[in-house]
Amino acid sequence: MEERPLILVTNDDGISAPGLRTLVRIMNTLGDVVVVAPDSPQSGMGHAITLDSTLYAERVTIDNGPQKEYSCSGTPADCVKLAVRELLEKRPSLCVSGINHGSNSSINVIYSGTMSAAIEAGIEGIPAIGFSLLDYAWSANFEASEQFVKTITERALKHSLPNGVALNVNIPNLRKKDIKGIKVCRQAKANWVEEFDKRKTPQGKDYYWLTGKFVNLDGGEDTDEWALENSYVSVVPIQFDLTAHHFIQNLNTWKLND
Amino acid sequence: MEERPLILVTNDDGISAPGLRTLVRIMNTLGDVVVVAPDSPQSGMGHAITLDSTLYAERVTIDNGPQKEYSCSGTPADCVKLAVRELLEKRPSLCVSGINHGSNSSINVIYSGTMSAAIEAGIEGIPAIGFSLLDYAWSANFEASEQFVKTITERALKHSLPNGVALNVNIPNLRKKDIKGIKVCRQAKANWVEEFDKRKTPQGKDYYWLTGKFVNLDGGEDTDEWALENSYVSVVPIQFDLTAHHFIQNLNTWKLND
Repeated sequence: MEERPLILVTNDDGISAPGLRTLVRIMNTLGDVVVVAPDSPQSGMGHAITLDSTLYAERVTIDNGPQKEYSCSGTPADCVKLAVRELLEKRPSLCVSGINHGSNSSINVIYSGTMSAAIEAGIEGIPAIGFSLLDYAWSANFEASEQFVKTITERALKHSLPNGVALNVNIPNLRKKDIKGIKVCRQAKANWVEEFDKRKTPQGKDYYWLTGKFVNLDGGEDTDEWALENSYVSVVPIQFDLTAHHFIQNLNTWKLND
Repeated sequence: MEERPLILVTNDDGISAPGLRTLVRIMNTLGDVVVVAPDSPQSGMGHAITLDSTLYAERVTIDNGPQKEYSCSGTPADCVKLAVRELLEKRPSLCVSGINHGSNSSINVIYSGTMSAAIEAGIEGIPAIGFSLLDYAWSANFEASEQFVKTITERALKHSLPNGVALNVNIPNLRKKDIKGIKVCRQAKANWVEEFDKRKTPQGKDYYWLTGKFVNLDGGEDTDEWALENSYVSVVPIQFDLTAHHFIQNLNTWKLND
């Protein structure tokens, strides 16, 4: 019998989030699962790591599934580092992160704790996928996501991923019959137009809440935003070599040493 | 007389860090300066943003320079968002971040608060540069950095940067006469091999400190690591479209909809 792959599962919404519990259940059908996830929500943490304080990781039992679970005091990137270097008995075949409660499409990938875990695994040379459902609610319905998550994971286990590439998967918040399929995409050019809500404390001091509106600046039909708006699951291969290779030649004309 | 450019200055080591004070002094010679920087150190914060708590920004006076300064309770990315949307009277011509106490070369760009501020400005369409000196000490000597920071900033003001590109500048910790010049580079493939230092609390509970060793896996002579090891200032143009365009065709052969 073929050995079952070891699959590391993490997220940024915390170990008890329904999205993670769904992901664990799916992964249990595909391999041996170890969960190392934050003990509390870490959304918006970007690729933060814990440099100047201590980390805890505690064995916990959350349901009666066969997986092994650790609740960790750190960020998603910390969870992956700690799993790979300390907690796992062997290198995982795959790391999956999510299913996030809320979109990580286009520029959101930069702010995403879910994707930072996938990127961290990628940096460690472990194939990795981040999954997100376009519903921020804790009570989000992950039913339609399940088959897509399973299919994409199976293909990733079969084909593997080249070093330096991870997958960013986003799933529209639709019933299963209304999702048209899966599309391989590029990251849309988009940004958030922030509007700070300025208030005063009871003591009269100004403070701000960050609010904002997501703006897609990209008319392309090959982007993740287009796919999601048109009822497709989007899959964007992402890399963590941030070099803007196309600008190197131009930059050399600046004659920085003259 | 030509209008002086408005320059936004921030960092991740906090508003009182010597690296930021050096950067402010240099920028005062090039334009009108507004500082919006974290009120306390934010290293390792990656691209974190403050979604679920309040933000404060207070006018402060730290030295007798002509710049306007705000001390902000948020992350470096928060500082940029708040500056652009609330605090500045007009759009800045440039955002500079740093000078960081410590390297942000190669894969460190992913974990870097300094670079997250530059990337956030870039997302807002503002030309941006992050500067880092390869010395983690608070008492680091920024003297040799000054001319390089000034030259690179002047060129960026003159030539500007295309939308979607920011610069990651790292400066070796050498005397000025020992620095050979400035090199345009790509990001080296490198990672951290973490070693968690496992300890027990006085109460007998396991905890961990993150420690690690930086490993350059890249033999290329066109990388930032090579430049820094060979006494050059490295300049890497970086982008925040993370799409791994080279893998899209291959991913389409996975036949995800079959």
